[in-house]
Amino acid sequence: MIFRIFMGLNVRVLFVLLLLGFGAVFYIGVSTSPIIVFVFSICIISFIFSIYLAKWVLAKDEGPPEMAQISDAIRDGAEGFFRTQYGTISRMALLLGLVILSIYLFRSTTPQQESSGIGRSASAYITVASFLLGALCSGIAGYVGMWVSVRANVRVSSAARRSAREALQVAVRAGGFSAIVVVCMTVVGVSILYATFYVWLGVGSPGSMKVTDLPLLLVGYGFGASFVALFAQLGGGIYTKAADVGADLVGKVEQGIPEDDPRNPAVIADLVGDNVGDCAARGADLFESIAAEIISAMILGGTMAQRCKIEDPSGFILFPLVVHSFDLVVSSIGILSIRGTRESGVKSPIEDPMTILQKGYSITIFLAVITFGVSTRWLLYTEQAPSAWLSFALCGLVGIITAYVFVWITKYYTDYKHEPVRLLAMSSSTGHGTNIIAGISLGLESTALPVLVISISIVSAFWLGHTSGLLDENGNPTGGLFGTAVATMGMLSTAAYVLTMDMFGPIADNAGGIVEMSQQPESVREITDVLDAVGNTTKATTKGFAIGSAALASFLLFSAYMDEVASFAHTPFKQVDIAIPEVFVGGLLGSMLIFIFSAWACAAVGRTAQEVVKEVRRQFIERPGIMDYKEKPDYGRCVAIVASASLREMIKPGALAIISPIVVGFLFRILGHFTGHPLLGAKVVASMLMFATVSGILMALFLNTAGGAWDNAKKYIETGALGGKGSDSHKAAVTGDTVGDPFKDTAGPSLHVLIKMLATITLVMAPVFL
Amino acid sequence: MIFRIFMGLNVRVLFVLLLLGFGAVFYIGVSTSPIIVFVFSICIISFIFSIYLAKWVLAKDEGPPEMAQISDAIRDGAEGFFRTQYGTISRMALLLGLVILSIYLFRSTTPQQESSGIGRSASAYITVASFLLGALCSGIAGYVGMWVSVRANVRVSSAARRSAREALQVAVRAGGFSAIVVVCMTVVGVSILYATFYVWLGVGSPGSMKVTDLPLLLVGYGFGASFVALFAQLGGGIYTKAADVGADLVGKVEQGIPEDDPRNPAVIADLVGDNVGDCAARGADLFESIAAEIISAMILGGTMAQRCKIEDPSGFILFPLVVHSFDLVVSSIGILSIRGTRESGVKSPIEDPMTILQKGYSITIFLAVITFGVSTRWLLYTEQAPSAWLSFALCGLVGIITAYVFVWITKYYTDYKHEPVRLLAMSSSTGHGTNIIAGISLGLESTALPVLVISISIVSAFWLGHTSGLLDENGNPTGGLFGTAVATMGMLSTAAYVLTMDMFGPIADNAGGIVEMSQQPESVREITDVLDAVGNTTKATTKGFAIGSAALASFLLFSAYMDEVASFAHTPFKQVDIAIPEVFVGGLLGSMLIFIFSAWACAAVGRTAQEVVKEVRRQFIERPGIMDYKEKPDYGRCVAIVASASLREMIKPGALAIISPIVVGFLFRILGHFTGHPLLGAKVVASMLMFATVSGILMALFLNTAGGAWDNAKKYIETGALGGKGSDSHKAAVTGDTVGDPFKDTAGPSLHVLIKMLATITLVMAPVFL
Repeated sequence: MIFRIFMGLNVRVLFVLLLLGFGAVFYIGVSTSPIIVFVFSICIISFIFSIYLAKWVLAKDEGPPEMAQISDAIRDGAEGFFRTQYGTISRMALLLGLVILSIYLFRSTTPQQESSGIGRSASAYITVASFLLGALCSGIAGYVGMWVSVRANVRVSSAARRSAREALQVAVRAGGFSAIVVVCMTVVGVSILYATFYVWLGVGSPGSMKVTDLPLLLVGYGFGASFVALFAQLGGGIYTKAADVGADLVGKVEQGIPEDDPRNPAVIADLVGDNVGDCAARGADLFESIAAEIISAMILGGTMAQRCKIEDPSGFILFPLVVHSFDLVVSSIGILSIRGTRESGVKSPIEDPMTILQKGYSITIFLAVITFGVSTRWLLYTEQAPSAWLSFALCGLVGIITAYVFVWITKYYTDYKHEPVRLLAMSSSTGHGTNIIAGISLGLESTALPVLVISISIVSAFWLGHTSGLLDENGNPTGGLFGTAVATMGMLSTAAYVLTMDMFGPIADNAGGIVEMSQQPESVREITDVLDAVGNTTKATTKGFAIGSAALASFLLFSAYMDEVASFAHTPFKQVDIAIPEVFVGGLLGSMLIFIFSAWACAAVGRTAQEVVKEVRRQFIERPGIMDYKEKPDYGRCVAIVASASLREMIKPGALAIISPIVVGFLFRILGHFTGHPLLGAKVVASMLMFATVSGILMALFLNTAGGAWDNAKKYIETGALGGKGSDSHKAAVTGDTVGDPFKDTAGPSLHVLIKMLATITLVMAPVFL
Repeated sequence: MIFRIFMGLNVRVLFVLLLLGFGAVFYIGVSTSPIIVFVFSICIISFIFSIYLAKWVLAKDEGPPEMAQISDAIRDGAEGFFRTQYGTISRMALLLGLVILSIYLFRSTTPQQESSGIGRSASAYITVASFLLGALCSGIAGYVGMWVSVRANVRVSSAARRSAREALQVAVRAGGFSAIVVVCMTVVGVSILYATFYVWLGVGSPGSMKVTDLPLLLVGYGFGASFVALFAQLGGGIYTKAADVGADLVGKVEQGIPEDDPRNPAVIADLVGDNVGDCAARGADLFESIAAEIISAMILGGTMAQRCKIEDPSGFILFPLVVHSFDLVVSSIGILSIRGTRESGVKSPIEDPMTILQKGYSITIFLAVITFGVSTRWLLYTEQAPSAWLSFALCGLVGIITAYVFVWITKYYTDYKHEPVRLLAMSSSTGHGTNIIAGISLGLESTALPVLVISISIVSAFWLGHTSGLLDENGNPTGGLFGTAVATMGMLSTAAYVLTMDMFGPIADNAGGIVEMSQQPESVREITDVLDAVGNTTKATTKGFAIGSAALASFLLFSAYMDEVASFAHTPFKQVDIAIPEVFVGGLLGSMLIFIFSAWACAAVGRTAQEVVKEVRRQFIERPGIMDYKEKPDYGRCVAIVASASLREMIKPGALAIISPIVVGFLFRILGHFTGHPLLGAKVVASMLMFATVSGILMALFLNTAGGAWDNAKKYIETGALGGKGSDSHKAAVTGDTVGDPFKDTAGPSLHVLIKMLATITLVMAPVFL
């Protein structure tokens, strides 16, 4: 409903409303901290910049009518699914909001809350409001991602008729628009909540809440964001891969027609899937990643500032917001560095678009390093430890290097320029079986390097922070965890550019589909094919990136959870001891959760794909004219089948993820009550969370890498290696690719959302376990 | 060399030597405890019974000369591989023994050791001697398993020409022989070590070691056993599956000849593989399982008895030995209950052998429940808590029920009588890809129920023990962990019978191969086929069983490790806190270890299978007469290729498993030293161990179940469902089966050995981390 009103508004009215809103927000910001004003200003500038990008993209032509027609069909399918999907999600969110409300109305309050005069009901409303706002913003982020991609795809196709460079630029700017809007929205959302609570609760004045406790109130926002992102990713992921696998199994394997051929009844469903699965879901996912990371870092900054008795803690608390403001600036510069219009007059030969994107990334990273240094000096300088800011700047550098190495490792394991994928392709020559064994081994093995990198960066960032010179009242070093938090921020300090590269992929993929379906000349298809291949690589690398940041963010949220439990239980809660049998069992259950969740996500794709296979087979039999272009296939039925099946199938794994930590925590709380073991529920949930995080990271790495490697092994054979298209090796490689589809686009990306959702749900639901 | 001397001896000389040995051992036993005498007596009776079984089996005829010829080839291949494999393993064991020796010569001693006058060097020699004895016994266990199976296979084939019942009986008694020898050897080995140390160190007399500390000296024995078992399982598992996959890929898929056809050059290698991979490796594996479980339970029993100040702690310490003595008795009865000779005169119709085996199992379980109750009343009755023995008897019942439920769950997921495998077979009808997706989902999902069962049994056994009434000096309940230990013993209280059922499988499989190769009539093949199918199910269920007991045993060894660290570090070590970044990193690395180990084990099979494929293809091309039975294929070359490749490939994953905990512990010890964090190395290793255990259990369950389900989905289609043999569904199902082979017979079973090896290696190597 809100979307409908939002969409029904005239652009000018919207603009005036926005201006008014910004005015109000600025007023609150000024009353809170100059840093907030700075953040708001940058966000407004970036927002205006994103509107410029959108206008630039929309000003491009939509190409000949046959293209526009296909694009309209895709848009209708995507928007239709989005409406039903988010309708279901918002109903679930409202229900969950009620549950949270009722739980919080019966919870006990913390000493801090009591001292600051926040009653039970205020705390309940604050949490529920944050939750709903987070869910709403996450929904908008997804919508924006899809909105631009269904409009940009046809414009990229059209531009590809003119020049490769122009097509690249249109795709990048379209991706850039949604990336900037998503990051802006996260930062602004958190800032507004923070500033509102600050002013409303009279923070800082004597007798009211301390500013260092404020960030804990934002947790609901993170939970709302990850709740929506989980279902968006699950539903979208099942949609896109069921349509893809189903279309391929009948079209490619049985009928031998090419990919995205207009005769395939499931082709529109497949193209719709790219938009709802990759663009919308990834928008919500990155929104949630950044939100979780900002909030956890703010909590840790606050806790640390309080322990060290720093006079003005706002620098430590607001640091993540500033980092992401600079992220917006440097990423915008990176996006603008990809130019193409000047040369568009001359038909230039196809350059490697990867090189161009990499150049932009290098510029962005270079600027990010500088701005990160500036931010640490500005906000993290304190007289108590004059060189602490330098340690933290190094932590940020650790994070940036980690991100870079992650991208490199993913490329090594999934790009066919390197050994692993070549060996995988080789193993296809001895059959389907050896291809699958080799792919699974490759995926399992590829977990090693990322885990080592994550381990080194956690330990080194922790020690950089630990030795930064910040001491608590008793003279113990306390900066360790905050150091890890700063490293996470460093990792995400180019998030907007990374998201741009990621969004670029499905837009290019869709453009290729439109070109194929509207039967454009070979040369145009060639351009979109190159863009598509690059998109595959950038998509794989972003996933590595998302997992890395999820690992770090979960670890931070875990500490926040322990602080939260301690403050509610009025007793120190510093240790989760896995030598206690129940806690060990919690770990077992946590890891099991990851396995079942992956199983259900993959099985959902398999089941839905089988429905698609049956429908496509039926259409080919009942309408024999389809193959000679005499009859038009019924695209709509496939779209409807996939849409309703994915909505149905997303519920089971999603519900499992949300319900199981609550049930486990509650059961062990009761068991602990009867056996005289205090805090048992909270401990078991903590261990469940940690084991789920570790297993989830490994499983996600395995699934993403194996899927990407299979895809590219197939592509490598299609370049003519080992017998090329149509050979037995190619058939074995196609099997691998089919298996990899639900791995890399459904289960894998859902898992890293799941990890963070678990971390936020335990924080929000902590009262149930106590 | 030792084997050669052993094998070269005349049976009578051996007998006299054995008698002399037993005399000496009895003398020591009498000086230790009457319980030891009881254990020795039962073991001697069982040993005589096993000789009776062996003689009975060997008295059967070897069938016509063509059968004996094939059997000889298999025997030569198996014994040849065994010699080289165990040669390599024993060299590695000696090297590791030297490493342990040098580490222990530089370690510090514990207060207990000091007070009992055990110096540094004594402790070093004790540990190394136990390690080498454990390794030797594990090797003998493997050898015995293989020795009987290469002799029984042809006798089963021959008996199958007469009656199904007789064939079943021969296979069961052959399996029973090695099962009883293995269990006997574990019990006797531990008892002898215990009694020797008891007498040598003058335990119990004032000023010397306390009896409750004695079991810790046995840890080296467990480590030696698991060290050998790991390499036996890896080498054997790679051997058997590489030969199997390679033979199938060319023979079945490319040339269309049946399984075990004499024209296939890799067929002898495949049959050899069953013996070295399934019989020898499983013998070593179960030996190690029981040893680890006995030793960990003895340690816990000792610790608890000491804490509760029980006057005569020997009952608590020696309880596991008595349980396994009764295990020998009840399993012997179970084996004898499978009769067949009387009816062998009449050609009876083929009955379901599963029913017969299940009947024997029911008898065994029934008797085990009774004897378990008797043992608890006898040994665990103490006046301090008169009803404690009843609580512990209930713990044992929990274990027995857990084992039973585990067997049932595995059957549900892998037997084609039930829903999951039928759905998997259905998914084959839409292609290779959907079959693999469905199989992986099935495997991942099948982890849920076993984990829930394990969780419930850990928690309930712990609470039964906790509330048993045993209190320490301060009045705190202390029986919890020992309750878990008793449940583990309950689970393993029918180990000999379970091992019999497991050994039965490969013997029947081999017999089928010999029947096929010697071209016997269809009716004979039918009988061995039925036995083979039953063998597949029993094999799958034993694996579930092995994982369940590995999970419990690791958890117990973990507690022993913490006690060990505490006593060496002279400081309490009760908690492993996963909120410390380094400890969390340890967990990440532990889970990663499981993923890489599985990757390498699967990849090894894939690579070796590719070598076999090339060799078989070459022979078919170079000797075209093979297909018309005009030329004989060169079986020996395939055997040699597989043997040398599996020896090479077993080193990498095995070395990883042994070296990584040591390296990680050492590195973090140094890091801890420089950052002022005491015991960091020990903590990180503890968390590594726990996370590896949890991930290992889940991964092993996944791999075993998926593999078993794929195998049986193929078998289900071969019964004629979904198009039957030769249809497209069948081809897809064969792909699934090929993928499942390294899952269920290489990586899966190696993982549960790995879990226990990690637990024992951390115990033995603890001085490195401190």
